[in-house]
Amino acid sequence: MVLAYLVAAGMSKIGKREEGSRELINEAFAEIEPLIDPKEIEAVYVGVQSETYEHQIMYGTLAAEVLGLLPKEAYRVEACAAAGALAFHNAVMAVKSGLVDVALAVGVEKMSAKSTEEVTDALMAASDLVDQLSGVTIPAHYAMIARRYMYQYGATEEDMCKVAVKNHKHALDNPKAHFRKQITVEECLNSRPIATPLKLLDSAPISDGAAVAVVASERVARKYTDTPIKILASTVATDTLSVSQREDMTWPYAVWEAAQRAYRQAKVEPSHIQVAEVHDAFTINEILMYEALGFSKRGSGYMLIREGQTYIGGKIAVNPSGGLKARGHPIGATGLAQIYELYLQLTGRAGSRNTGAELGLAVNEGGVNSAVVVHILKV
Amino acid sequence: MVLAYLVAAGMSKIGKREEGSRELINEAFAEIEPLIDPKEIEAVYVGVQSETYEHQIMYGTLAAEVLGLLPKEAYRVEACAAAGALAFHNAVMAVKSGLVDVALAVGVEKMSAKSTEEVTDALMAASDLVDQLSGVTIPAHYAMIARRYMYQYGATEEDMCKVAVKNHKHALDNPKAHFRKQITVEECLNSRPIATPLKLLDSAPISDGAAVAVVASERVARKYTDTPIKILASTVATDTLSVSQREDMTWPYAVWEAAQRAYRQAKVEPSHIQVAEVHDAFTINEILMYEALGFSKRGSGYMLIREGQTYIGGKIAVNPSGGLKARGHPIGATGLAQIYELYLQLTGRAGSRNTGAELGLAVNEGGVNSAVVVHILKV
Repeated sequence: MVLAYLVAAGMSKIGKREEGSRELINEAFAEIEPLIDPKEIEAVYVGVQSETYEHQIMYGTLAAEVLGLLPKEAYRVEACAAAGALAFHNAVMAVKSGLVDVALAVGVEKMSAKSTEEVTDALMAASDLVDQLSGVTIPAHYAMIARRYMYQYGATEEDMCKVAVKNHKHALDNPKAHFRKQITVEECLNSRPIATPLKLLDSAPISDGAAVAVVASERVARKYTDTPIKILASTVATDTLSVSQREDMTWPYAVWEAAQRAYRQAKVEPSHIQVAEVHDAFTINEILMYEALGFSKRGSGYMLIREGQTYIGGKIAVNPSGGLKARGHPIGATGLAQIYELYLQLTGRAGSRNTGAELGLAVNEGGVNSAVVVHILKV
Repeated sequence: MVLAYLVAAGMSKIGKREEGSRELINEAFAEIEPLIDPKEIEAVYVGVQSETYEHQIMYGTLAAEVLGLLPKEAYRVEACAAAGALAFHNAVMAVKSGLVDVALAVGVEKMSAKSTEEVTDALMAASDLVDQLSGVTIPAHYAMIARRYMYQYGATEEDMCKVAVKNHKHALDNPKAHFRKQITVEECLNSRPIATPLKLLDSAPISDGAAVAVVASERVARKYTDTPIKILASTVATDTLSVSQREDMTWPYAVWEAAQRAYRQAKVEPSHIQVAEVHDAFTINEILMYEALGFSKRGSGYMLIREGQTYIGGKIAVNPSGGLKARGHPIGATGLAQIYELYLQLTGRAGSRNTGAELGLAVNEGGVNSAVVVHILKV
């Protein structure tokens, strides 16, 4: 099997941006342009969630056009918020297939021109139709899970807020983050309810942004960099569309499944992972992921954050970028924003938030953990 | 490089259906269930155009759920009407990557519950925003191309109608076709205008339907069939989102580019192809494709249909299934409906419309030929 390497990554500034998709893609790509001759890119895979935000579906062609890559292979891959990591997974598959030596993954979303109601509606299309008809929004799903988790294991609203506090702290050192502002547990507890027990400061924002990553075969990887990053694992797993069909709603089975497969592919253990970017769309989900990724035992993930073990410098640095909560969450770009952070961390380019890690993991999900993508990277 | 084989394919009846996506996927899969143990499928790629028709985006998870394939890898791939062939391309890439031995491609669309206006709007998202704001619908784009083609090369409205007459004739022998009704050139010429010079009977219908195909590695292909079909080529090419940016709007450059790459991959010439399924969303496009695929010289494609050479039994059988025009055009399913027809033709399962062909080609496109997928298959 052909080995695949991450050789370059770029990201736009994340936040409420004036620019549209085309400009955001260009901004992310500009960061890697000195490293990669666009002519050498043979295929482009674009992760983007919704056709409704910009009334556009041909994002593969659009990205190829913007980057001067026509008439090359280009199309869109999608599973709601997992789209960005799926674009990366597709690029890995393309390189491993031997069909191309260099593939580009692009993630992008331009959301802020729509109202919160329109975004909420677009995101509900990632859940089962029965749940949609019942009026259960995505935040409401996570709220039910949070409530059940608190009941089942004794976690508190403070524990969840501590995830947000950590991620805002990390983002202080990330010049491209949506929010660079320290918050306190009290501010989080007192922020307005979104879907009780989840509050505004438990929730990732609506963001605009783009991120890109270049995957190259072993044959050509060293042409681009002296420190190509090995893609040790790239896995995708799925779970029921409706949370109601799961045995235990506090257990994100697809995260566990994708992670188990990834650990086997990479031949590493959870305890070896030094840095992780995880999908904290709501604070409760970061805690669930600690457990399903094997960073803690089932039912005790909240102890990790209560003890501060997932700060940079702790047992394992989780979301050094600031995560979805503070770096921001432009849906289709998020998975690649995670890969971008690992790229910076593993090559020592993360500046004041450098962890010095050599082995990192990213987990990106769509729906309510109903499509999950895990990557393990090693420098 | 791992060789990839098409080992099974299935399709629902196409037309205005009462059923939703879930039932249509099940119906298509039921045709291959006797051949394939679902447990052996390792990944699922779903081609579907729009989130608006059923307010759903998680079609990968949905298909895996419907087919009992959770928690396996599953996601959506898309470039509007090219989605079906892209799902197949993705399955080919997955098998060639060595990551999986058996991959399932699913194409589905449930359109008929929406009004023609809603469908027209959803399809316009496949064009450039400037064209959308100008009010140029997809049919209007093809109408401009048709008008220019007639002016440039001397083709007539009769020539275009002859494509529709042929495809309706072929569909008479296809029990799963949307329309099984012979039409005449006069009926076509007298049908109501859609975007002049294109009329109702120049245009593919709004259809519901699903199709599936199984791609297997050389290692396991013969477990499923004694006559695995070699996938000789699988290519994707792109062209400007806006037709206005092309040098010659009558030349579908991405079709030519994808075909040229496919002929090189397959090591065959256009004259070797015995059967082809091409993307006749409007009759003019079948004529353009004759030229860009190299079945005729540039500017003389209309002579092929004028002389009746693309009927079954002619120089090359084009759209023996009835094509998009008469088999029907459930957007995300169309590319796999084409693969399904080649499967039937190359394995001699096409009944009274059998061509006896051993080498076939399919071309599926999205936008206005701005994303194009070509496959070449050989028994």
